[in-house]
Amino acid sequence: MSEIRKHYFLEEYCIIAPQRGFRPSDFSKFRKTDVSIGDYGSDRGCVFCLGSEDKTPPATAVYTDEGVESDESCGVVRDWLVRCFPNRYPVLSPDRFSGDPLARGFGFHEVIVETPIHNHEPSSFSDAEITRLVGAYKDRYEFYMGVSGVEFVSLFKNHGSSAGASIAHSHSQLVALPLIPPRFSLEVDGKECRFCNIIKCEAGSERLILMRDGWVAFAPYFSRYPFEVWIAPIKHFSDLTGLNHVFSFASILRDILSSMREFFGGFSYNYVFFQCDVESYHLHVKVFPRLSVSAGFEENTGICINSVAPEDAAAELRSIILSK
Amino acid sequence: MSEIRKHYFLEEYCIIAPQRGFRPSDFSKFRKTDVSIGDYGSDRGCVFCLGSEDKTPPATAVYTDEGVESDESCGVVRDWLVRCFPNRYPVLSPDRFSGDPLARGFGFHEVIVETPIHNHEPSSFSDAEITRLVGAYKDRYEFYMGVSGVEFVSLFKNHGSSAGASIAHSHSQLVALPLIPPRFSLEVDGKECRFCNIIKCEAGSERLILMRDGWVAFAPYFSRYPFEVWIAPIKHFSDLTGLNHVFSFASILRDILSSMREFFGGFSYNYVFFQCDVESYHLHVKVFPRLSVSAGFEENTGICINSVAPEDAAAELRSIILSK
Repeated sequence: MSEIRKHYFLEEYCIIAPQRGFRPSDFSKFRKTDVSIGDYGSDRGCVFCLGSEDKTPPATAVYTDEGVESDESCGVVRDWLVRCFPNRYPVLSPDRFSGDPLARGFGFHEVIVETPIHNHEPSSFSDAEITRLVGAYKDRYEFYMGVSGVEFVSLFKNHGSSAGASIAHSHSQLVALPLIPPRFSLEVDGKECRFCNIIKCEAGSERLILMRDGWVAFAPYFSRYPFEVWIAPIKHFSDLTGLNHVFSFASILRDILSSMREFFGGFSYNYVFFQCDVESYHLHVKVFPRLSVSAGFEENTGICINSVAPEDAAAELRSIILSK
Repeated sequence: MSEIRKHYFLEEYCIIAPQRGFRPSDFSKFRKTDVSIGDYGSDRGCVFCLGSEDKTPPATAVYTDEGVESDESCGVVRDWLVRCFPNRYPVLSPDRFSGDPLARGFGFHEVIVETPIHNHEPSSFSDAEITRLVGAYKDRYEFYMGVSGVEFVSLFKNHGSSAGASIAHSHSQLVALPLIPPRFSLEVDGKECRFCNIIKCEAGSERLILMRDGWVAFAPYFSRYPFEVWIAPIKHFSDLTGLNHVFSFASILRDILSSMREFFGGFSYNYVFFQCDVESYHLHVKVFPRLSVSAGFEENTGICINSVAPEDAAAELRSIILSK
């Protein structure tokens, strides 16, 4: 039986409809050929692979065993482990003109290639790899938040074509905007954090998946997508500038992705950083495998149909993590 | 160059980013196998085809050359042209219990099979077929709006797997809800219609595609998706109960779909009725081919990235329609 659930504090609804998961599909045979099922294709011609540095714009930041460099300061760095550079097909771009930043599409769009290895991705990363990547996220976020005219930095990963990626080689993206997206103002209510209490409640609920080193991962009561997971610090801070212990968060992110991979096999997924430079906002990262398509009903109503109850999703992922 | 555009009156933004359309994709070879490229598969085993009436729940309304019937009143009707029945895997369902309608997932979910022919769909419908279908939309909308406990009826079509369909045989869906989705209250502002003026302005803009018999079709200034089209009556009314001349609207819907098919070849698409039982709301139907995937950025910011300027989309579709 379905249930219509209201968001914790926003005027938003979702429908938990477990019986929808059993419906047949004419299209499942097509979905099996999707790269989301673990096929990266050949690395031949991949512009994000080690050795293809000349096929992308010069790197703005390059992480090696030695630390951080950039192509501009050092020439093209070849022995990179994480490589950041401007997107060749940017959503927004800086320019030399003045005037309304909205009308001229002012902003920055950066690609963060997470690994030099073609068919490797965060769910299989070592402790060192995932820590280096999250460290790069923090650096690049802080860098762009310091650029004049930037009000907000969106940081996210699309993995697999169902999740909106156009390149298979594992990468994240960062888009720096000249405005704070209106949805964030709805989540902020003066000086009081609206998330602190939610996070504490979920940490004590049947939806908890993992709690470690001051962080929790849970399937939220208000889950818009099947197997949606939120990762959040128990102690309040609003964005990555407040992240002091990179490994604590990074290892939980990797472990959640790894448990999903064990449950689904190869899969398309997104993870998205919800953060902003407002003291009362509470950083959280949403992770969700892409198992469903937003369709006419969602467009019409703004209400997502989720065919997996978060209580069930949490139980599955928790049991995988506990069995390690 | 990109442009960040604000919605006509809501606190929403979209990014028009034409250069994004040129980026390469590792996944294009997979997309070619999608049913969206016009492959319906075989009709063998299709539960929506003529002759498979026993494989679905009994019809609530059946449209034949003779008029409207139902399976319950007449036994199973075999010579149907449009067939409506409860979804076997409903998002929401009526039940015999009382209590909070949200907690028990109260509602209705109906399938409207638009044609008895397996590989036929609205973009190729005759005048009689499209008029019959829109007439059925109006009937079923009015029926469910009259059911006790129903506050809102969502009516939409998902065509092709990229658009969220699970069955290839052309069909629409109707979901009756016990609440008005919050987004509609944002679009209503007291007694004044917020759309009348927008529609008149767009009718005189470079984004107009077609104006006929009191209806306009245009690519909205604030277009979240490539080739998004709105169809709306110039004279104000709020929902399908106000639709007196079915053919005027139906033929425009068909002509817009037909122009998209001519432009794209076979394609996945959605169309969605925006309407509610509030006097100051203005009915409009959004049509959009599914050319892009909502990804991490959209989830994070609520801001859609659209790689086709509506001015360009309108010019393409207008020239196809004018050439007929």
